[in-house]
Parts: sequence; C-alpha cells; structure tokens
Amino acid sequence: LNGTRKIVIIGCSTAGTMAAIQARKTDRNAEIWIISREKYPEYSLCGLPYVVSGIIKDFKSLIVHPIDFYEKTLRVNLMLNTEALSINTSEKSVLVKDLITGEEKKLKYDSLVLATGAKPASLPIKGIYKQGVFSIRTISDVESLLLHLKNLSSKLIVIVGAGLIGMEMAESLSIKGYEVLIVEILQEILPAMLDPDMASIVHKKAEEKGIKILTGTSLEEIIGDEKVEAVMIKGKKIPTETVIVAARVNPEVELAKKAGISIGEMGGIKVNEYLQTSIENIYAAGDCIETFDLISKKSFPIQLATTAARQGIIAGANAAGDLKKYPGSTGVATTKLFGLEIATAGITSSLATKLGIKSTSIRTTALTKAHYYPEAKPITTKLIADIKSKRIIGAQFIGEEGASLRANLVALAIRANIELSELELLETCYAPPVSPLWDPLSIAAQALSKKLSSMIE
Amino acid sequence: LNGTRKIVIIGCSTAGTMAAIQARKTDRNAEIWIISREKYPEYSLCGLPYVVSGIIKDFKSLIVHPIDFYEKTLRVNLMLNTEALSINTSEKSVLVKDLITGEEKKLKYDSLVLATGAKPASLPIKGIYKQGVFSIRTISDVESLLLHLKNLSSKLIVIVGAGLIGMEMAESLSIKGYEVLIVEILQEILPAMLDPDMASIVHKKAEEKGIKILTGTSLEEIIGDEKVEAVMIKGKKIPTETVIVAARVNPEVELAKKAGISIGEMGGIKVNEYLQTSIENIYAAGDCIETFDLISKKSFPIQLATTAARQGIIAGANAAGDLKKYPGSTGVATTKLFGLEIATAGITSSLATKLGIKSTSIRTTALTKAHYYPEAKPITTKLIADIKSKRIIGAQFIGEEGASLRANLVALAIRANIELSELELLETCYAPPVSPLWDPLSIAAQALSKKLSSMIE
Repeated sequence: LNGTRKIVIIGCSTAGTMAAIQARKTDRNAEIWIISREKYPEYSLCGLPYVVSGIIKDFKSLIVHPIDFYEKTLRVNLMLNTEALSINTSEKSVLVKDLITGEEKKLKYDSLVLATGAKPASLPIKGIYKQGVFSIRTISDVESLLLHLKNLSSKLIVIVGAGLIGMEMAESLSIKGYEVLIVEILQEILPAMLDPDMASIVHKKAEEKGIKILTGTSLEEIIGDEKVEAVMIKGKKIPTETVIVAARVNPEVELAKKAGISIGEMGGIKVNEYLQTSIENIYAAGDCIETFDLISKKSFPIQLATTAARQGIIAGANAAGDLKKYPGSTGVATTKLFGLEIATAGITSSLATKLGIKSTSIRTTALTKAHYYPEAKPITTKLIADIKSKRIIGAQFIGEEGASLRANLVALAIRANIELSELELLETCYAPPVSPLWDPLSIAAQALSKKLSSMIE
Repeated sequence: LNGTRKIVIIGCSTAGTMAAIQARKTDRNAEIWIISREKYPEYSLCGLPYVVSGIIKDFKSLIVHPIDFYEKTLRVNLMLNTEALSINTSEKSVLVKDLITGEEKKLKYDSLVLATGAKPASLPIKGIYKQGVFSIRTISDVESLLLHLKNLSSKLIVIVGAGLIGMEMAESLSIKGYEVLIVEILQEILPAMLDPDMASIVHKKAEEKGIKILTGTSLEEIIGDEKVEAVMIKGKKIPTETVIVAARVNPEVELAKKAGISIGEMGGIKVNEYLQTSIENIYAAGDCIETFDLISKKSFPIQLATTAARQGIIAGANAAGDLKKYPGSTGVATTKLFGLEIATAGITSSLATKLGIKSTSIRTTALTKAHYYPEAKPITTKLIADIKSKRIIGAQFIGEEGASLRANLVALAIRANIELSELELLETCYAPPVSPLWDPLSIAAQALSKKLSSMIE
C-alpha cells in the first residue's frame, strides 16, 4: 500500500457502521467513505415496531449515532442519500450518484466493504403494487404506513408473513387498536425461530389477545382500483385498506453480481473466513452475505443485527489491513411478544430435518426461581440433539423472563462443543429469589439425555 | 459385591438427598439408609431468610420432598432425629443413636456417603453463649429466633457477619420493621462474592434502606446476665436483646476425622475426582468437603447448595457402583438484596491476590435492553483476567435483572476455556424489548481486552 489507505463502505446500517468504527480503530490515517441510499445513518430496524406501538416515541430515538459521530469522531466521509451504481474492480472505483442532486462521481478505493443489507422479496401476489401495500423494512416504509393509517375507514390490517417482524408489527398495531389478520404460508408462526410445537404457545397467546392468524394459507390477490379495497384469502373476499408485507427478505446482491463477485447457492455474497469476497480487497458483511453456520457447517444468510454487527467489525478490520477471522455463527435470536420472552439458539428440528441431520428433542417446563418463591415463573425449554454426535444443536425458550440469556448460554455451549452430560450438571447460580437449584436448561438436558440413552438401548 | 448393596448416607440435606436419588437410579436393588440429626428431611437453607420476612409463608414450604418421597418413591430407610456417633471402617459399620429414644444401633454398609454439611464457626466473642444469641443455619435455629422476637422490647438486632446469609437476614428483619446493625470484620460486605468496589454498590443501597453497617469492625463483647442486654462495639456499649451470628461456617468433619479419613489443609474432607475419600467405599459431598476449583487448581470448601447438589449426584452414583467424575467447580453464586440482583462467577480480585495470581480487572455499566427502550436497566459488570494467561478468572454482576444468568455464562466460558477475544464478539440475542445489540458482558470484555493490550505495549 502506497500512501493513505482509501476504504469505501457501501451501506450505513449495522454492518456498515461497525465496519467504519473498526476500520478507524485499525488504521488511524485511512480515508474512509460510507455510502448510503437512506437519509439517516444506522438505525435500529428491530425498533421500528415499537415506534408504531408508541412504546418508543419517535424514529429519531432509533438512530444509533448522530452524524457528528461519523464525521467528527470517526472522521468518515458520510454520503447519505447516495446510491452506489457500479463497482469497477480493475480500476478499484465505485460510481456513486447523489439521489438529491443527481450528480454522479467516482470514488477510488484500496479496499471496499459491501454492507448492502437485504430487501423484501417480491412476492408473486396479484395486486401487490397497489396503494395501501407496505413493506416495513426502513424508516421511510414505516413513515408511509403511519401516514396511511391516519386516514383509514377500515380498522382491519392484513399482515403477510408471521416471522419476527410480522408478529412484532401485529402486536404493535393491536396495541394501537387495529384489528390484525396475519396470513402465513407455512404451517406455524415464527418458523425461522421456533418449531411448530413451541410456536403454538405464542400462537395461542396472540389469539387470546385478539389477533387472527391463518397459517398454511397464502394471500391470493389484492383487490382494488389504485388503492387496496380487499384481499382474497381461501377464495373469500375480505375488505381492508391495508396490507403489510413482512415476508422474507433477500440479500441485496445486485451491485456485487454486476461487478462479478461470486454469489453463493443460497443467494448471498460468498465470503471466506476473513469475510473476503471472491475479489481481493472486497469484503462483505451483514444481511447481504452467506454466514458460516457452526452447526450445519454450511453457509446461508442469517440476517440478524447480531451477526451483522460482529461481521462488520471483522470486515472493517480486514479492510484496514488486519487479518481477523469470523468464527462463524450459531444463530441466536430473541423477541418479546404478548408478554412472552422468546429465544432460540442453533437450529430448529425442522431445519435439522431439511439439512439431513437426524435429531431428537425434548420439551420441558420448569420454574425460573425456587418453586416455593412467589415470583417464580414457568419457562418452556425445547432442546434438540444430533442423535449421532449426541451434541446439542438447538434450543428454544419461551417464558415471561430469562429466555434470551439462556439461549446465549446454549449458543456458547454449542460453540465450545460442550457435551450434553456437562449441561446436565452445569454449575449455575442458586438463590430462591433469583434462580432455582437446577436451572430449567439443566432439567431439559437431563430429560434429553435420558431420552437419548433409551433410544440406544 | 455379594448380594444386595448396602449404602448408608449420613446427612439429609441437599448433598445427602441427591446422593440417595442418584444411588437409587444407579442401583434399583440397593438397600439405602439416610441418617440425619434433624427433624426434617432436605429443606432449603437458602430460603430461611424469606420465611423471616414473610415472603415465604412457613418453614414447611422449604421442605423439598415429603417423607413419602424418600420412603416410597426412593425406597430409602430415612432415619431422622438420628445421630451418627462413629464409623468403624474395618467392620464397615456406622453406630447411630436415635435422639428421641436414646437407642443405639449399628448399620452395616458396603459404601458410605458423608454429607455432613457445615456448622457455624465458634467465634471467640465473650458472652456468645448468652440467651438471645442465635445461629441461623437450621429451621430450629430460625424457629428459636422467631420465638425470641415475639417478646422484644428493643427493636435493634445486631448481626455479626455481612456475608450472603447475614445480608439476606438483615433485609428480611428490616422488612419486618426491626432496626438492623451489621458488624463485619472485613473491609466490605459480601467478601466471598464481591470485591469491595462492587460490594460498595450494595452497601450504599442497604444504608439507603436504613440498615446500619460497620465494616472492619468486630463485636468485642456481649453483655448481660443470662440474657443479652447490650453489645460492645469499638468500646461503645449498644443496648440490644438480640445477636445473630451469621459468620463463616466450617465443614463438619469430626465424624470423618475420628474414623481416620484424611482432612485437607482448608479443613474439609479430602476427596479425589470420584469424590472418594482416603478410605475406599467412603465418598463425601457438599459443604463438608474441599472442592476442586477450576481456576486456582486448588481445593477448598465452596459450601454452596449448587455444588452440594452436583456433588451429591456424583457421590451417590459412585457409592452405587458407577464411576462418575466430578468436573470441579468455577464457583457461581447469586442473591437478591434491596432490589438488586447480585451474582458472581469464578474468583474475586481479592482472592486472586491471596492465591498469588496476578490479575487485572475492569468495571463497566451498560444497559440490559436497547438503550432507547423504556424498560432498559443498568447492570454493572466487573471482569477479572489473569494477566499472564489473558483468560477470564472471575466476573461480578449487579443490576435489577440479568445478573445470575450472565454469571452462569461466564462460569461456562471459564470451564470451556474460552478466550477473552471470543467473549468480546460473543454472539448474543438482540431485540429491543429484551436485550441490547452488545451484551453488557461483551462490552466489559471489550474494555478489559483494551486494558490488557495497553498493559503489554
């Protein structure tokens, strides 16, 4: 490298921002650019439903760092409202366009970080481009939705997709007094996080709160002239003015593809353990890449802020001359819905089956504190083991408290290759007002171990 | 072994009961005896303060299993109110005495489990045997205390010792309207769990709640004729009718010593990794033994229900013919005091110094949920690393929530020999209403790592 290192980062969400922070820590003198189509720098996508419910006051609260942090603390050239049009990998330059002035210019780089994120999959639903159909991926999306909600005559909102964001938005809209109907094509809600037997606990709670859920069902058509007037579900016409599409998101890889960067089988940018793409000096991180999964030893898009943040650090460090390895992911995710904390680590039984892993599982319910202590709450644990290796490959927790921190522990146990027998006798804190003598996780591990031995006999 | 295996277990608290359960699982035909001086089978010692406060209704709620469980489910000969007088190791017999009838008899064993627990150290305080001085180790102790409290004219209660049980009892008595004065000989409260910088957070909160604490101070004398009338502290006479001794407990090893079983340097029964004592066929578990500590690689009494339960399982299994190893302890403990959840894993900085381990530490405060989410609570984390190995050797957490489960995670990380750099980027669940993008533990690990690298430069 001759002279000052030039680093260009495309995308200013979690991965892009973390990449910039780490690049600056690694190289104090580098020139760093961040390019983003959006009008705001990094904000919490995961916080959007809580602005809708009013639990969080405004969109500004979701912005992680003020612009000054980028410009003064990080000494980064932050180019918001700017689109990266193309990458010239032989010249090592990015052509960018100011979306307000229309002005185009070329930025030269020594290393490039792609943190382009993901975009909602375009669903093959007739009428999906009508007014009244909303994505909820960005602040702009949700701003448009909120504006639309001000002038509704029908209180019914149809949500397509019962994943995390769909369910969170359903609860938020329900809190605001809307009637919510969720349509999920798969057999149960929250399919990426939970197996159907666990998801049904949340499903039931949602219905108790008045939310209608149709699983195994697709939205057949959106009806109306320019605006949404009704939807067709199972041949029935249901009047509504609002459809929220919260179905899956796909890695945003067009820019990479056009530049000749390899895309993996699962649709994300392919990276090695240094998060380097197929082209030298181009790194990638976050929702746009395929992440190495420690359980299946396969790579696929995980698309969590958790992984985006950690990958951003690795990509930013390496773009600035370091040689850090990304250790791979075990997949941990959590949410809170209808008073239940829900968390998952590793893979579900359903995914294990898809991946060709023979697994078995157990479901137990135990208390989060000593049984005689009045504030003890039940927590339901599902533990999944690979029958062959007898190792834990996944865990799911649902309870009023303590789900996410237990999922973190299981994730670490998977990462550290801890045996099931060790989890059975795991040394855990005990005090009646805080936790039981045997943690619910150990109780589940004991039951799973018993089941596994009976299978061998 | 010829014929039916005879297993005698001395002690019916956590270790003794778990030993019986596991012995029965391991050998369906064994004859099993449990001998206990007490009138109740296993009950939660840790629950006693909450009966005093009234949060738990009665002592009976603390009893873990009904007598029927022992006699019918486990098919154990449960001998309560019975003292083990001596062990004849060549004859393989225990001489026991019924404390009600005075009758003595001999029990033959093939294997023996010592789960004799611990007893309050006898403190060299003048006047300590007067009426009005109480231990709080057993239900009987606390029953006597409660009876005494009914006829008090002075509302002031003096507690000697600011360890876990002393502090928990202080809060309970304060809830019931008593004035509490705690006298602690060491420089800060909770010395086994916390370093002084962390303990001072709890100390301050206790004082805000009206509890008086004198640290670095000893009780010089207990004054009165037969009954307590006053105490002398720093040469000052303070009138009171009640002194609670909650100072350290010592392993109960007299029976073992008399039988020629080796006692360790720290005063507990010496055991190997199978929890076998120096005499074949005699195992020991719980508060009476020295536990192998994974950090210092030394053995000392840990005296937690957590370790007692796990050791009971190992000792019970091996007494019934199995060959299970006890994996050693990392020491995890928790409590809740004055609205604060307090937890520790590994060793304190103070203990590291005593053990000759050069350590450094960091203290950080971070939020338990996304910073913009209204229910986010601060949690203070202290992380301690061995300077040479750069590994975590201890962690302390204080906050309104999430302390104990984080201590469990650190304990697992220590056990699995996880590097500090892995904790920095630890994959943890994220959702605004549940947990932040960077767990407070990772934030502390990042700060500690920075401190360690600056020490090397």
